[in-house]
Amino acid sequence: MKLTDIVITPIAMKDPPLRNIQGIHQPYALRSILQVHTDVGLTGLGETYGDLAILTALRKVAPRLRGLDPYDLNGLERIIDETLGRAAGLATHGLVGEASDEKTLATVLSAFEVACWDLQGKALGRPMVELLGGKVRDAVAYSGYLFFKPAAHTPLPDYPTDDWGEAMDAEGIVAQARRMVDGYGFKSLKLKGGVLPPDDEADAILALRQAFPDHPLRLDPNAGWTVDTSIAVGRKLDGVLEYLEDPTGGIDGMAAVAREVSMPLATNMCVTAFSHLKPAVLADAVQVVLSDHHFWGGLRRSRDLAAICRTFGIGLSMHSNSHLGISLAAMTHLAGATPELTYDCDTHYPYLVEDVVQPGALEFVDGAVAVPDGPGLGVELDLDSLARLAEQYEKCGFDTRDDITPMRAVQPDWDAVIPRW
Amino acid sequence: MKLTDIVITPIAMKDPPLRNIQGIHQPYALRSILQVHTDVGLTGLGETYGDLAILTALRKVAPRLRGLDPYDLNGLERIIDETLGRAAGLATHGLVGEASDEKTLATVLSAFEVACWDLQGKALGRPMVELLGGKVRDAVAYSGYLFFKPAAHTPLPDYPTDDWGEAMDAEGIVAQARRMVDGYGFKSLKLKGGVLPPDDEADAILALRQAFPDHPLRLDPNAGWTVDTSIAVGRKLDGVLEYLEDPTGGIDGMAAVAREVSMPLATNMCVTAFSHLKPAVLADAVQVVLSDHHFWGGLRRSRDLAAICRTFGIGLSMHSNSHLGISLAAMTHLAGATPELTYDCDTHYPYLVEDVVQPGALEFVDGAVAVPDGPGLGVELDLDSLARLAEQYEKCGFDTRDDITPMRAVQPDWDAVIPRW
Repeated sequence: MKLTDIVITPIAMKDPPLRNIQGIHQPYALRSILQVHTDVGLTGLGETYGDLAILTALRKVAPRLRGLDPYDLNGLERIIDETLGRAAGLATHGLVGEASDEKTLATVLSAFEVACWDLQGKALGRPMVELLGGKVRDAVAYSGYLFFKPAAHTPLPDYPTDDWGEAMDAEGIVAQARRMVDGYGFKSLKLKGGVLPPDDEADAILALRQAFPDHPLRLDPNAGWTVDTSIAVGRKLDGVLEYLEDPTGGIDGMAAVAREVSMPLATNMCVTAFSHLKPAVLADAVQVVLSDHHFWGGLRRSRDLAAICRTFGIGLSMHSNSHLGISLAAMTHLAGATPELTYDCDTHYPYLVEDVVQPGALEFVDGAVAVPDGPGLGVELDLDSLARLAEQYEKCGFDTRDDITPMRAVQPDWDAVIPRW
Repeated sequence: MKLTDIVITPIAMKDPPLRNIQGIHQPYALRSILQVHTDVGLTGLGETYGDLAILTALRKVAPRLRGLDPYDLNGLERIIDETLGRAAGLATHGLVGEASDEKTLATVLSAFEVACWDLQGKALGRPMVELLGGKVRDAVAYSGYLFFKPAAHTPLPDYPTDDWGEAMDAEGIVAQARRMVDGYGFKSLKLKGGVLPPDDEADAILALRQAFPDHPLRLDPNAGWTVDTSIAVGRKLDGVLEYLEDPTGGIDGMAAVAREVSMPLATNMCVTAFSHLKPAVLADAVQVVLSDHHFWGGLRRSRDLAAICRTFGIGLSMHSNSHLGISLAAMTHLAGATPELTYDCDTHYPYLVEDVVQPGALEFVDGAVAVPDGPGLGVELDLDSLARLAEQYEKCGFDTRDDITPMRAVQPDWDAVIPRW
């Protein structure tokens, strides 16, 4: 089995106006969809960021992969290294740490690597989870991901609407959580913070605690707070949070907070590449790392990360960006085969109103997605939907994620100041 | 594909009287050979220690594996955990660190895991190296492993003889090295130390340096020295050794030596399980870890170790015990797919005069073994040889490795004092 043509399709999907420390989600989120064809008639699927920089890198690599055996993941990595070299880092939207060459290569590697695993599974007639060592759980639990948000994008009526309504205070967040829990069965909840003053976000967490006494709760202000603020909020939420995610920036800052608060500190900002792990371990900066196969270099590298976390006594959770069903399937297979992943994974999936995969393979039951049992990823591309979302990409006017500009449509003097409090 | 019967055959193979800190090799080395049968007619092979404790553990686990899918490596691990529980650690011959429950489980896991990989490869018609991510090298370089030794076992004539002759001084070691280099093409040399007074072993290294000016050299006294002696010898051999392996015992001791000598310190004694890695990293105790799939938990766990070494800036080499061709094939596939393994691997294979695999698949050319290209491990069992070595096991009178007792046949007051110098 050899790779032949690789078709990379940028798509845009409607996205609600979700708030964060950078600003607000654009009305469309961008993804790149990979169809990796072979000489035996099988096609592997991949999904990753849609930003122009990554799209350009993917397109530079794709023709070099012709003839590659999809089992040759070491060869895949070598070709990507050779093609992109120590190229300039990709642009980043600032929510997953700094850009770097290491992360660029890992991101590109991951997109193709997932498609190679999909091909291996399809050729064997086995779901990907079996190639990753076999199921350690039948279904993967996800957490309900809560966001402060206005009712609609600005300016309307040019932009798509959503039916989640406004949630700019504790009451709105509790109502959003109620819909998440009732609709999907989530057993844990995560609030994206860094939007309101820290005391107001702590109050939202306390309101969630009252409304959902048994749900583990997480708060993620995306490094929006100083060390002192982080310690103060951490103490206020003593005994309430499952973990506090990236209260402040940097390994040193996180270590300073970790020494003074009771709950575990989690990160997908100060430890987002293998080179960050040694300094984080030496500083005892974080107690939970959020993996994400998209930027950690794919499924093999994510398993490496799991082994490192197991070995160094660090918990493992999973990060999410806005994504479609191909990514959800890959996340679910990976988590399904990874015993170290004991925290519910993040997902933006409930906010999705259009997908490129055919329905039916991925359903939330009691907050969990059963590991698909079809060959490979176990999902099939819906070519009509892909074409429609590709057309939406061409028309939407964006080629790179940018949460700052749309925020300025709401608040003209907006700047993404970090830390803000 | 499901596992059916598993046949575990203990064998004894002739072994020369190789010296080390514990004493001297018995005239026969023991191994367990696994034939893992399936319902599709394929048989996977495995090889590990032959000591009674491991043999007993293997036999306890084997019937529990009936029905297991050889892809389900997580299930394999779960069954072994459940079967052996937190059982007492295996006995150890004292050359690979302390026994522990962690190592017992890892050792048993590895034996079956390799057979499962062999089955996966055979079912697919692909060499194991491809299932491990693909070749990063066509051939795996090994180092010539030098041992002090008398001419023959005591007492003769009951015991087998060998044609390596005596090597109890620098001159003998240089002659042994010459035969290793001429016969196998080894490009690096390792001397098992802890036998002569440290200055004499240093002199043997200096004699090797003179005789083989371009061969990287290693010395491994198996923790036979105090910290002060280690520092003194380390300084004497400044610029001469590729690495100094386990000069002294324990993570703290190794860290104390590492601070005072110029060469990297390697270990297969103070870091032999995942639980040792964090303290070793925090103490900056070792610069090279010798992996060994037999006691690190198989090929997946060895790859985990490689990822940890890469991430924490530790070099990776490979340890060997006396072994047969099944283990050599597994070591070669693993090393063939592991980019982090940049040091030549250890092997006792040149001392072997009888094997259980059919000849031809594993040849040393220029000190390296080409990664076998047959399906799975790429080696076939020779059933006549297996039967002969199994008979030898029944007759040899040993069921556990013990280097102390045969040493007392030579020197009645012998004790394995560590550190000795």
